[in-house]
Amino acid sequence: MKLDEKGLLIVLSGPSGVGKGTVRSALFNRPDHNLVYSVSMTTRKPRVGEVEGREYFFVSRDEFEKNIREGKMLEYAEFVGNYYGTPRDEVRKQLDNGNEVVLEIEIQGALQVREKMKDAIFIFIAPPTIDALYNRLKSRGTESEELIQSRIEKAKRELGLAYKYDYIVVNDTVDNAADRIMAIIRAEHAKTERSIHKYKEMLEVK
Amino acid sequence: MKLDEKGLLIVLSGPSGVGKGTVRSALFNRPDHNLVYSVSMTTRKPRVGEVEGREYFFVSRDEFEKNIREGKMLEYAEFVGNYYGTPRDEVRKQLDNGNEVVLEIEIQGALQVREKMKDAIFIFIAPPTIDALYNRLKSRGTESEELIQSRIEKAKRELGLAYKYDYIVVNDTVDNAADRIMAIIRAEHAKTERSIHKYKEMLEVK
Repeated sequence: MKLDEKGLLIVLSGPSGVGKGTVRSALFNRPDHNLVYSVSMTTRKPRVGEVEGREYFFVSRDEFEKNIREGKMLEYAEFVGNYYGTPRDEVRKQLDNGNEVVLEIEIQGALQVREKMKDAIFIFIAPPTIDALYNRLKSRGTESEELIQSRIEKAKRELGLAYKYDYIVVNDTVDNAADRIMAIIRAEHAKTERSIHKYKEMLEVK
Repeated sequence: MKLDEKGLLIVLSGPSGVGKGTVRSALFNRPDHNLVYSVSMTTRKPRVGEVEGREYFFVSRDEFEKNIREGKMLEYAEFVGNYYGTPRDEVRKQLDNGNEVVLEIEIQGALQVREKMKDAIFIFIAPPTIDALYNRLKSRGTESEELIQSRIEKAKRELGLAYKYDYIVVNDTVDNAADRIMAIIRAEHAKTERSIHKYKEMLEVK
């Protein structure tokens, strides 16, 4: 369902282990939406089966750094020796087509986007409690108690940045969280500053 | 469904003939909500079957004017020689109980509430087009062409006040409009400034 002639940029973010990816998948599995992913850019080599422009835009280090210098990256980070980031033109194109562009990114990336896209919607996905986050990390069964504790400490620091977001969505259940995000997208389209121009046209034409 | 420990005041308003009452009924007919009406106060005499505190709080003119003087009315208007208005304490009590209080009022009343309740959500219900509004008024079959035209002119002036509202909801179909209002209520509860206190507690307790 297309809500408007112009889409919104939806930035989903939150502490590691909070379930961002699962919530995003649940969102995209809903019927009748107009959400699209933004394809990221990276300097890492494509893996078997990965397709240029589908998983990533694969570029050289030189090219990526040129994009950074020219202000063409909405956000980027370096991770294990490779750049990863969101190209601004790609996002802009999708928004102009009326799609809602969803970025699922880390908190530092989100804060970079905040400075460049004043009109984007920033949603912080929060655990219902710190204990719930601990249990989720624990149930993965892949990390030591020490690593889990360090993730919890990091999550607490990140929760302290939630005030920089427009909305806080509790991931109590994945379906509830997805419902709340859908509600936020609909409500944002109904905001007066986004829709008043239509009524101005209505009044002038008649 | 109770969304929060404290409810929101939802002010529905819009031009005459736009279908405010129908949209409000559709909202209240939804399952699983926490919406309540606010009972108005009036100086007109009760009609047969009307119950004190259900249809209205029936008071004397002296008492109503005392309430006005003491700042106890959220909004009021005089209509055919009687006062009608919304008592502030009644609204406050419902909000404190975690109910979402819905006021369906005229635009002038809404603007009075805006000044007194900074935290309320103001939703302007708009017709999809001026023609649609004309057709709706016409189909009632109860008013002369002249009266309909004067209502249309008034509606245009009122549409010019839509910018003072937080949201504009198009009443293209009653169900769509009710969906949008429900989405707005959910989204407003997820707004960071309304929910951040919960996370502060989470961080302090642990």
